[in-house]
Amino acid sequence: MTAKYGVGQGEQLTMGESIDEIRVARAGLLRVIEPPSPTLAAFVAEHGPVLAWEKIRHRAAPGGLRRSASGRTDGSTADQLQRLAIDDLRRASESGARLVVPEQDEWPAATMAAFEMSDLVAPLGLYVRGTALPPEQRGAVTIVGSRACTAYGRRVAAELAGDVAGRGSRVVSGAAFGVDAAAHRGAMSAAGARSTIAVLACGIDRVYPVANKELIDEIAAGGGVVLSEYPPGTTPARHRFLVRNRLIAAFGAVTVVVEAGRRSGTISTANAATELNRVVMAVPGPVTSALSIGCHDLLRKGQAVVATSASDVLDAMGLFELSPPPEMPAKPTDLVVGETAKVYEALPGRGGRTVWELAQESGVPAGEVMIALAELELQELAERDGPNWRRLR
Amino acid sequence: MTAKYGVGQGEQLTMGESIDEIRVARAGLLRVIEPPSPTLAAFVAEHGPVLAWEKIRHRAAPGGLRRSASGRTDGSTADQLQRLAIDDLRRASESGARLVVPEQDEWPAATMAAFEMSDLVAPLGLYVRGTALPPEQRGAVTIVGSRACTAYGRRVAAELAGDVAGRGSRVVSGAAFGVDAAAHRGAMSAAGARSTIAVLACGIDRVYPVANKELIDEIAAGGGVVLSEYPPGTTPARHRFLVRNRLIAAFGAVTVVVEAGRRSGTISTANAATELNRVVMAVPGPVTSALSIGCHDLLRKGQAVVATSASDVLDAMGLFELSPPPEMPAKPTDLVVGETAKVYEALPGRGGRTVWELAQESGVPAGEVMIALAELELQELAERDGPNWRRLR
Repeated sequence: MTAKYGVGQGEQLTMGESIDEIRVARAGLLRVIEPPSPTLAAFVAEHGPVLAWEKIRHRAAPGGLRRSASGRTDGSTADQLQRLAIDDLRRASESGARLVVPEQDEWPAATMAAFEMSDLVAPLGLYVRGTALPPEQRGAVTIVGSRACTAYGRRVAAELAGDVAGRGSRVVSGAAFGVDAAAHRGAMSAAGARSTIAVLACGIDRVYPVANKELIDEIAAGGGVVLSEYPPGTTPARHRFLVRNRLIAAFGAVTVVVEAGRRSGTISTANAATELNRVVMAVPGPVTSALSIGCHDLLRKGQAVVATSASDVLDAMGLFELSPPPEMPAKPTDLVVGETAKVYEALPGRGGRTVWELAQESGVPAGEVMIALAELELQELAERDGPNWRRLR
Repeated sequence: MTAKYGVGQGEQLTMGESIDEIRVARAGLLRVIEPPSPTLAAFVAEHGPVLAWEKIRHRAAPGGLRRSASGRTDGSTADQLQRLAIDDLRRASESGARLVVPEQDEWPAATMAAFEMSDLVAPLGLYVRGTALPPEQRGAVTIVGSRACTAYGRRVAAELAGDVAGRGSRVVSGAAFGVDAAAHRGAMSAAGARSTIAVLACGIDRVYPVANKELIDEIAAGGGVVLSEYPPGTTPARHRFLVRNRLIAAFGAVTVVVEAGRRSGTISTANAATELNRVVMAVPGPVTSALSIGCHDLLRKGQAVVATSASDVLDAMGLFELSPPPEMPAKPTDLVVGETAKVYEALPGRGGRTVWELAQESGVPAGEVMIALAELELQELAERDGPNWRRLR
C-alpha cells in the first residue's frame, strides 16, 4: 500500500483496489475513530486502508481499536458502516469538497513527511474544498494568534500576511476570529484567495465561526484551499481545535505567532510546529499587553525567533529551505553507543534540554555531554534550538 | 602600585606616595588625556599614576602619549599642570564631589575587574557625588533607552526600575531625558535616592540636561551616587556619551534596554555590557514602533534575552550570580593546541560567531568545531550565548 496511485476515479489499481475503494475505506476510518489515533495509524500502516477498514467494520480489529471504534460502530452492521463512509463522501461532494488520500498524487507528501519524524499523527485523509493542495509546505507561512486579539495584533497579522503573500507566499491559518481572519484577509487583499489556506476544526461542510462563512466561501471559491480531516457534519469542539493546530503548523514552513495569551491555544500550534521541525517565530508586542505574554514566553524559552516584519519571515524561510530534505535511514541510532547513547536517551523529542539538564538526566559529565551532542548533531540525531537540545528522530 | 591603600587623606603609603599625591596625579592624567586611552592605561599600569603623571607633565612620556597630551599641556609648565590637577580636585570639592581612585578601598574593584577581560578601558578615577560607590555590580540593574522614548517606554522603565528597586536592587542609568530619567525616578519613588546611580557624560560639577538638575541633585543629596570620569568643567559631547556608556554598563550586573531606535546610542551600552560579560536584556515592544527596533534587533541577534518584568530581570541576575567570580590564571591558552587553537583564534572577544561561522573562519570542519568548543568551554576559554560563541578571556 505504499505505492503511489493515479488520481483517476474508478481507475483499477494494484492489489485490485480502486482509488474509490481506498477513499471509501479512509472516509470510514475517519468516521469511526476520532483522529488523530496513533493506534489506528499504525494499523493502517500495517494492513493498508482497505483491509484495515474491512477489519474494523467487521469487528475483526484488535481489542483496543475495536473499543475505540465502538462508540461509532455499535448498533451498525458492516454494510451500514460502509454506507456511512460512502455517505460522507457524498455529503462532502454536495458541499463542493473531496477527500484527498495519501494514495493520490495530490497528497502533500513532502508536507506530511514531517509527521514521520515526530510524535504527532499524520491525517488519514483530508477533505478539501477549493483548488489542489500545494505539494509542499515550502514557501508557506502559518500565521496564528488569539481570536480575541487587539487592534495591534489584527494590524500586524494583516500586514504580515499581505506582505508575504505579495511576495509569493501562501498564508495558512485557522479561519477563526481575530488573528486568523486578519491573516487570511491580509493575504487575500494582497494576492487573492489563491494565496491562502484555511484549516478547519469541524466538518468541511460546516463553517465555524458562522460569521466567517463568507471568508471561508471566498477562499474556497477564489482559488484558495479550505481543508479538514474531520468527516462532514463534525461539530467544532475544544479538543478538535488543539488537534487541528498540528495541521495548521504542518502546512507552513514557518509558524508565526502574532498574539497569544499565556495559556492560549495558539501555543499548541507553536508546539506542533516545533515538534514538526518547522521554524517558529513570535511577534513581540507591548510587555503591558496580556496578549503578548505567550509570544514573549516563546522568545524567552528560545522556542521562537523574533518576527517583526515580512523580511524576517522570508529570511527564516530561506534558512529553512537551505536545510536538507528529510530522509529516513534505517535505524541510525544503532550506531550510537556508550556515553553518547546515554545522552541520546536523555534528549527529549519535543521541547529541549540544556547541556546542564542533560548532564543531570544522563549522569554523564557536562563536558562529555557536549562532545556527545556534537557527535549526535553530526549524525543528525540531535539538534540545538538556542541553548536547548532535542532529538531529531 | 598594585597594593591596596587605606583611604585616610594624607596617610603615608608605600613608596613614599600619599593618597593625596596619587589623587592629584590621577586628576592630572584625567585632565590632560581624554579618557579612555588604552595607551595611557598601559603607561599607568607600568609606572604607577604618580610617576606616569610626573613623566607626562615634564614631557618625558613616550612620543604617542606626549602627542595625545599636547593639546592640553602645550603652553603650560610642569608646575602649572600640577596646579591644574589640584584645581580640578578643588573644583570637584566645591561642588560636593570627590575623586575616587583605584588605590582606595572605596574603588569598586569587583565592578572594574570586568574591564581587565575586555577590550574596554577602565577609568583612571571617578569623580563621585553622594554616598560611597557600591563595592560591586551584583544586585544592580542598568536600565537604559532612548531620550525620545514613547509613553510606553517611560512607563515600562519606571515600573521596572521601581519593581527591582523595591526588591533591593540599585538602578543605574545616565540621567538623560526619557528612559534614563524614568528609571531613576521609578527607583527613587520605590526605594529612595539611595537605590540609584547616575553616570554623567560631563564634569561632575555640571548637569546635563539642565532640566534634570533637580533629579541629579536629589540623587546626590538623598543617598544615591552621581559619578563621572571627566574632570570638572567638561562639557557633554556626543563621543562622551558613547564612552560614558561603558561605565553605565559596568555598574549593572544586567543591562536592560527599554526602548531604542535602530541606530540608537543605547545600543552602545548594550554592546559594552556584552563586552564586559554582563547579561543584556531587551524589552519587547510593538513591532510598529520605531523605538523598539533596537530592542528587537538585540533579541533577533541573540545578544539580549527578553525582559518583560522585574522577575525576568531578577532571574537573569540570579543566573549571573551563580556564575563563578572572574579569575585570571596565567595564560590558560597555552594549553590550547591543534584544531582547538584554530577555533579559539576564530572566536571573537565580543558579539559571537555560530558554529558554522567558526567553521568558515577557521577552516576546521563544523563537527570538530563543536568538539573544540566543548573543550574550550570546559577550560572556561569560550562561552555560548544562544547560538553564538565568544572568547571568555
